[in-house]
Amino acid sequence: MNRESLLEATRSQMPARRWEHTLGVMSSAVALAKRYGADPERAELAALLHDYCKYWPIDEQRRVYAEEGLDPELLDYDPQLLHGPIAAEVVRKRHGIADEEVLDAIRYHTSGRENMTLLDKMVCLADYIEPGRDFPGVHIIREIADHSLERALIAGLDSTIRFLLDKGKKVYPLTLAARNALLEEAGRAGFGTK
Amino acid sequence: MNRESLLEATRSQMPARRWEHTLGVMSSAVALAKRYGADPERAELAALLHDYCKYWPIDEQRRVYAEEGLDPELLDYDPQLLHGPIAAEVVRKRHGIADEEVLDAIRYHTSGRENMTLLDKMVCLADYIEPGRDFPGVHIIREIADHSLERALIAGLDSTIRFLLDKGKKVYPLTLAARNALLEEAGRAGFGTK
Repeated sequence: MNRESLLEATRSQMPARRWEHTLGVMSSAVALAKRYGADPERAELAALLHDYCKYWPIDEQRRVYAEEGLDPELLDYDPQLLHGPIAAEVVRKRHGIADEEVLDAIRYHTSGRENMTLLDKMVCLADYIEPGRDFPGVHIIREIADHSLERALIAGLDSTIRFLLDKGKKVYPLTLAARNALLEEAGRAGFGTK
Repeated sequence: MNRESLLEATRSQMPARRWEHTLGVMSSAVALAKRYGADPERAELAALLHDYCKYWPIDEQRRVYAEEGLDPELLDYDPQLLHGPIAAEVVRKRHGIADEEVLDAIRYHTSGRENMTLLDKMVCLADYIEPGRDFPGVHIIREIADHSLERALIAGLDSTIRFLLDKGKKVYPLTLAARNALLEEAGRAGFGTK
């Protein structure tokens, strides 16, 4: 499948507003790839496909998730976490995407994971900082992204965790594990208030 | 060993300021036990002993931790997490404390854990809200403690997690697991920003 057909197939999965977001994530991922020495084409491909299933009806997402035999633990957390893992399976089958690192970057773009690859980090971070994003602190994360992929991503994950604390929602353990591992990478550690 | 001897033995392990804190945790734990239908004597005993090892030199804490063959994963996190687990072993041996629920409440008072017992919750919460504590939000946690042990403890753990996020420090996964489990108990769930 050529690039134009894949763009069109992906665009047709989502509302226009989300397609704008996808184009933003693509351009941010390409910029990060150039900045941090990764392959811009693979970064762009993973970014293009990261939200492929995000606007599918949630029951359809759950059906595909079960059908693919994916980790049932995730079902104890917010359904927003389903669209990454299922997109990896769907684009592999529908569009013949066979690059496992690209599929992992799609799979883990919402949750993060321990020991994230360069591609994982770029797609997850691009999703936080693409030009259309406007949440408290996004400007700071964009600035940090100019000099440290890990520290920018920690700041992004921190914003997600704070959001969940504020809302009284559960935090998926893999997201905390991603942050802890990135702190190790960035050379810090520690504990708390008591 | 009678109560007075145990009080004196514990007092001798810590500076005067921390002994004041211990007395505060004891009175708060007893109040919570009366409020929530637990045994005030066991709550007071666990509260008395919870910081038994907190002011031991950190190298001595590490030595005991290793000697007791405790979970090495915890060593990847802040040394502040060591004093609870080692206190449980030390007071069992030195003072013949054999009540496993009391020992668990001592062991997990800093980290929390999944499926906390009533006694675990009361000691962990009393440690947050005893009268000498003065951190942002402590008054709110004291108010919540009047009507929900779980929600007050969630608010306490949230304050620890926020502190660690602010400081750029790792969060021990068991602390997040404790919070997630308490949210389930309190009847809520969910995920985030993306």
